[in-house]
Amino acid sequence: MSKQTRRAFLSAAGKTAAVAGVATLTGSTAMATPPAEKVFVHHVYFWLNNPESQEDKAKLIAGLQKLAKGAKTIKQHHIGTPSTTNRDVIERSYQVSWLLFFKNKAEQDVYQTDPAHLKFIEECSSVWKKVIVYDSEDI
Amino acid sequence: MSKQTRRAFLSAAGKTAAVAGVATLTGSTAMATPPAEKVFVHHVYFWLNNPESQEDKAKLIAGLQKLAKGAKTIKQHHIGTPSTTNRDVIERSYQVSWLLFFKNKAEQDVYQTDPAHLKFIEECSSVWKKVIVYDSEDI
Repeated sequence: MSKQTRRAFLSAAGKTAAVAGVATLTGSTAMATPPAEKVFVHHVYFWLNNPESQEDKAKLIAGLQKLAKGAKTIKQHHIGTPSTTNRDVIERSYQVSWLLFFKNKAEQDVYQTDPAHLKFIEECSSVWKKVIVYDSEDI
Repeated sequence: MSKQTRRAFLSAAGKTAAVAGVATLTGSTAMATPPAEKVFVHHVYFWLNNPESQEDKAKLIAGLQKLAKGAKTIKQHHIGTPSTTNRDVIERSYQVSWLLFFKNKAEQDVYQTDPAHLKFIEECSSVWKKVIVYDSEDI
């Protein structure tokens, strides 16, 4: 997978709407849990249209912070920027990392159409040109 | 108020207080978002030489499990495989996800030359053809 457009991102978000109702039935409120518990890991990397724009980066980060508070099924979130580590195998061309833990796939599916998530996309998607998402489930 | 009446009143009041206390605790726990301590996020994705080989995948996973126990500075680890989620923006061609939290960059640097890490590379690197690493630091 290479470059993805805002349109593709929005379209992809829309496609999950059909399964959201089913996912809600199996969803439950997250309780305090030990760190070793198995989780669904949703990791998104953002590339900005204007990589050097501190204003755009701040806008995206503020949007993610608001999203973290508004989305109901997020267990844990981390907003990061590339470290200074620099080896051949390290991808460091992105600008913002958005790492989420969910209880399971169903709760991640709910997140895709959470009103807070849709609002975030509406308000912030103009600043990024590409996103790559890695969804993994703990063994 | 007789002694018996007073005793009954106090007993009832005590039960009410206890119930109220439990209700308050339950309410606050359900609403709480886990505090996200700032961490260094080291996320590695592995592509195997033989993506269909369950034996190679098992060997890699066993190596990572051993590494998780042996490396001294890992705060938290997650070994995962791609979810069934499937949208245009999702990268799902890798076989194994290895997500680590460190206290900071210095502790991640220690990990890179931890004997357990070097041993893991020596024992397992024959099974993979490609790795991509994303190192990010929480804002």
